Amino acid sequence: MYQSFEEAGRTSSAASSDRVKALQRELKSRRLKGFLVPHSDQHQNEFLPPSEERLAWLTGFTGSAGVAIITDKGCALFVDGRYVLQARKQVDLDVFEVLQVPEAKPSSWLIDTLTRGNSVGYDPALHTIKEIERLTKALAPAGIKLVPVADNPIDAQWGQERPKPSASPIFLQPVEFTGRSVQQKIAEVQAKLTEDQQDAVLLTAPDSVCWLFNIRGGDIKHTPVALAFAIVPATGRPTLFIDPAKVGDNIRGILKAHVDLAKPEELDERLKALAAEKRRVRLDPESASMRFARALEADGVKFVPGDDPCVLPKATKTKAEIDGARAVHLRDGAAMSRFLSWLDEMGESGRVDEVSAAMKLEEFRRESGQLKDISFDTISASGPNGAVVHYRPTNASKRTLDKGSLYLIDSGGQYVDGTTDVTRTVAIGKPTAEMRRHYGTVLKAHIAIATARFPKGTRGQDLDPFARRPLWEAGLDFDHGTGHGVGSYLSVHEGPQRLSRLGTVELEPGMILSNEPGYYREGEYGIRLENLILVTPLEKIEGGERKMMGFETLTLVPFDRRLIDPKQFVKWELDWLNAYHARVRRELEPLLLSDDRPWLRHATAPIG
Amino acid sequence: MYQSFEEAGRTSSAASSDRVKALQRELKSRRLKGFLVPHSDQHQNEFLPPSEERLAWLTGFTGSAGVAIITDKGCALFVDGRYVLQARKQVDLDVFEVLQVPEAKPSSWLIDTLTRGNSVGYDPALHTIKEIERLTKALAPAGIKLVPVADNPIDAQWGQERPKPSASPIFLQPVEFTGRSVQQKIAEVQAKLTEDQQDAVLLTAPDSVCWLFNIRGGDIKHTPVALAFAIVPATGRPTLFIDPAKVGDNIRGILKAHVDLAKPEELDERLKALAAEKRRVRLDPESASMRFARALEADGVKFVPGDDPCVLPKATKTKAEIDGARAVHLRDGAAMSRFLSWLDEMGESGRVDEVSAAMKLEEFRRESGQLKDISFDTISASGPNGAVVHYRPTNASKRTLDKGSLYLIDSGGQYVDGTTDVTRTVAIGKPTAEMRRHYGTVLKAHIAIATARFPKGTRGQDLDPFARRPLWEAGLDFDHGTGHGVGSYLSVHEGPQRLSRLGTVELEPGMILSNEPGYYREGEYGIRLENLILVTPLEKIEGGERKMMGFETLTLVPFDRRLIDPKQFVKWELDWLNAYHARVRRELEPLLLSDDRPWLRHATAPIG
Repeated sequence: MYQSFEEAGRTSSAASSDRVKALQRELKSRRLKGFLVPHSDQHQNEFLPPSEERLAWLTGFTGSAGVAIITDKGCALFVDGRYVLQARKQVDLDVFEVLQVPEAKPSSWLIDTLTRGNSVGYDPALHTIKEIERLTKALAPAGIKLVPVADNPIDAQWGQERPKPSASPIFLQPVEFTGRSVQQKIAEVQAKLTEDQQDAVLLTAPDSVCWLFNIRGGDIKHTPVALAFAIVPATGRPTLFIDPAKVGDNIRGILKAHVDLAKPEELDERLKALAAEKRRVRLDPESASMRFARALEADGVKFVPGDDPCVLPKATKTKAEIDGARAVHLRDGAAMSRFLSWLDEMGESGRVDEVSAAMKLEEFRRESGQLKDISFDTISASGPNGAVVHYRPTNASKRTLDKGSLYLIDSGGQYVDGTTDVTRTVAIGKPTAEMRRHYGTVLKAHIAIATARFPKGTRGQDLDPFARRPLWEAGLDFDHGTGHGVGSYLSVHEGPQRLSRLGTVELEPGMILSNEPGYYREGEYGIRLENLILVTPLEKIEGGERKMMGFETLTLVPFDRRLIDPKQFVKWELDWLNAYHARVRRELEPLLLSDDRPWLRHATAPIG
Repeated sequence: MYQSFEEAGRTSSAASSDRVKALQRELKSRRLKGFLVPHSDQHQNEFLPPSEERLAWLTGFTGSAGVAIITDKGCALFVDGRYVLQARKQVDLDVFEVLQVPEAKPSSWLIDTLTRGNSVGYDPALHTIKEIERLTKALAPAGIKLVPVADNPIDAQWGQERPKPSASPIFLQPVEFTGRSVQQKIAEVQAKLTEDQQDAVLLTAPDSVCWLFNIRGGDIKHTPVALAFAIVPATGRPTLFIDPAKVGDNIRGILKAHVDLAKPEELDERLKALAAEKRRVRLDPESASMRFARALEADGVKFVPGDDPCVLPKATKTKAEIDGARAVHLRDGAAMSRFLSWLDEMGESGRVDEVSAAMKLEEFRRESGQLKDISFDTISASGPNGAVVHYRPTNASKRTLDKGSLYLIDSGGQYVDGTTDVTRTVAIGKPTAEMRRHYGTVLKAHIAIATARFPKGTRGQDLDPFARRPLWEAGLDFDHGTGHGVGSYLSVHEGPQRLSRLGTVELEPGMILSNEPGYYREGEYGIRLENLILVTPLEKIEGGERKMMGFETLTLVPFDRRLIDPKQFVKWELDWLNAYHARVRRELEPLLLSDDRPWLRHATAPIG
């Protein structure tokens, strides 16, 4: 999932150079030797609204992650391995040195560039508490200080051209789909605060706020959240801080049954008042901006560090959310099947390109009549573009699908009853033996996760190796996690559950994750096979002694049989695959028009 | 591996009760409300010399881990799940409440038992720095203070009866077996100190000290170490603090080429001098006693926390140590095979018991003429005793091996060129289908580790799930790690490498680990299958892109074919098993007398 910034237009080298010079002058007048420009907003959103794209405005770099450092001695842009090439193309290399994290470190660069006693400014709204703590610690031995600025110098410069903040109306998410009422959720959060002996919590993550109040919004592309904050006291009514323009009268009336409404501008004052009253206010230092830690500081009082108490209950889906997820995947699977059937007919014609294919799929999803939005910018990648993990096609870059290539499509939908995210890799024309072998290896990895059984206490990091083993055996690997959490008509990337080296949270029944191992052959093709899976308790296993959990696969879309060589699989792997395909056929057939049924029957015929 | 304490005789309930009362009187005179009595010594050894068995002397409890807390309001003994039953049998339950960690916590118990302002004494020589830091933090909110005592009140009471500290002579470990000279090792440690900008390191772990100076000793049963300390300065000569009675003239002369010798009594003074000079002295807070942190504290000066710099190089074996490991395993495998051959002949006779079997195996190992010692007290467990993971037979408890049972033997040898640790489970008479199914499941787990391939950066915790998967699939699990590190003619338990949830250190070529998954059916039998394995770089894999590592299995002992049902395995598992058995036959046959060769041929015949 990656942010694209095409619509806002690209910052030219000349514009970037002028903007940097103006910023440097401003820093000088503020007696700052440097300034940090992260890809971030005050909610620490993964996808930014256009009004928050300061990094792209200043540098021209449109990637989804990175930080620029502007100093009077030179400027650097730090990006991860995915973005080095793109950044070097997009930014003015006479102005910016492009450096790759984690090999290069902003702290080391600052220490090498500046001298003892220098101050570097940062906007406390745009950095998490932990981030600033770590950087402060790293810079301390070199005598370089981080200084929060009261107003971001870029915003003044950006001025009238800066896009207005979104004020999309919020709407209610019916309890029929959430399975938990606002009262229940508030009570649950309040019980946690009481247990932890805290007076209140400040929620800064929009998906936590929307989850808690059973509302949705439209401030972020493809993610149905409203930008808002909330304070939940251990007892009494919570306050929702939201632009009144977003709240219609009807919704205001309904919300007011349980919630007080306030303007976002009132938040800082409210936090200062809590600090003055010496209230113990919980704040998540990993996800909350430094701005809020500062607002909660008053002589001797400090915020209480603690994780966002909505995150775990939000990740653990209710029966209604699980029912919704199943329903959504029928609908979405039918659209994907229609697309794959269309692709089998048209793919080799030379008349399909990456953009038209993505649009066709969106069209099929819309024809369900229930699509609210796609859940992220579709990754539609032909041939070598499939090996660029963060690839998004544009009209300028798009490739035509050609015979003998692999085509990778990673996409999803937002529906009122759930969020989908699915990736399939398809042969266009006849695949090579090597393509089939690599596809088989990734499919074995996928099946290893789909079939995993595990006891209570198992963390995502304990299962991630199951997906890697088939690749490791072949001397291969993939450089991303095996899976991420997925929300219910919310963010398509949701914590805390994940299948990766970083997955330290125990898996619990009700959590939804993606299962998406891959293999990327640079300059040739990319393979990724992604289903969503639901953690479920297992019935007692014959002869077993311990309670086990497993995964129910939610996604219902055939895997490309032309890329599957049954000889590469052992029996239980083929058994899983054939049972999955039989289920896909049984569940989707009634939803397809008669035109697509023969395709489905063929696509799900037994293998081996 | 577990400490037994049978030789020292059991503390009776009456004696324990008197000793506790005397201790309580002493605490009162010192104005302490409580005192901690851990199973520990000043080196934080896993296996204690008899002079350090304060916990057993006071309470009667002889397990290998636990801590007693004596207060004027009552006494508690905290042990883990392995030891609850044993502790309840061994201690006077009128005096001690036996509690199970981690469900019960010493800190919570102290908070419940004592009141604000109370002080609890501890001997700073017997607790690690981290341990005291954690406990201090946990007790702080309740206003309970931890107070170090200058002299341990138990030692005064124990008096003349206390066993003398061991003063076994040390001996040199030839560079032919270590592969690194003392100078090389000192230079390596000093380079690390220079890199980390430290002036010196204090080594408190006996196996680190013995490794660094290429010496061995006899102060701990079955572990060839000398109890000693060392200070290594970043430049100049290290000092070895060791009882002069342990150092013969010849060895003294050789050591003095690179090392200064001093008495252990001089250590504290030396540390105080370093602190007074404001030297930056490195100390490992996870493994060093609080005593040394205190000795290194002088106005404003504190020790520098850092891991023991010998641990990682010690774990990464040299070519000489690897050659030694291979040679040792031929010798040890031959002894094990002679034993298993003998067992097949005698096991069903009703004349073999757990103790006589263990003695027979030791006899075969000794007949090699090269055994220095067994590497730990043999676990020789018949039938239900096999399910008691820490079981050690005694003449009082021993079972006779009977028909239709499983027999588990976990043992090892110390040789000048290496240390072994091997477990086999054997059918005595005809096994049931269930026994075979469980044996097969554990063998699949073992093979999953033996055949693992993995890239650089893989940690033990990433591989541990491979061993669990076959058990998880059957609704089973085992409650210990899959493997531990093993030393070279040193400790049979060695860090930092391990295959377990706690294995956060990256695996490196040259590390030796055990591969020992198990299954324990309470009241019926235990199955554990253990080989030692060596991390090795792999040749380039056909079609592979990344450098991979794998394991070379070092142990050469047949698995019991009577317990293997080929139908339970897939082809690559049987391929591994048959290749392993063929190798065992090829390598061991020349080492066996003609009597045992037919047994070996039969035991290693192809399966499936």
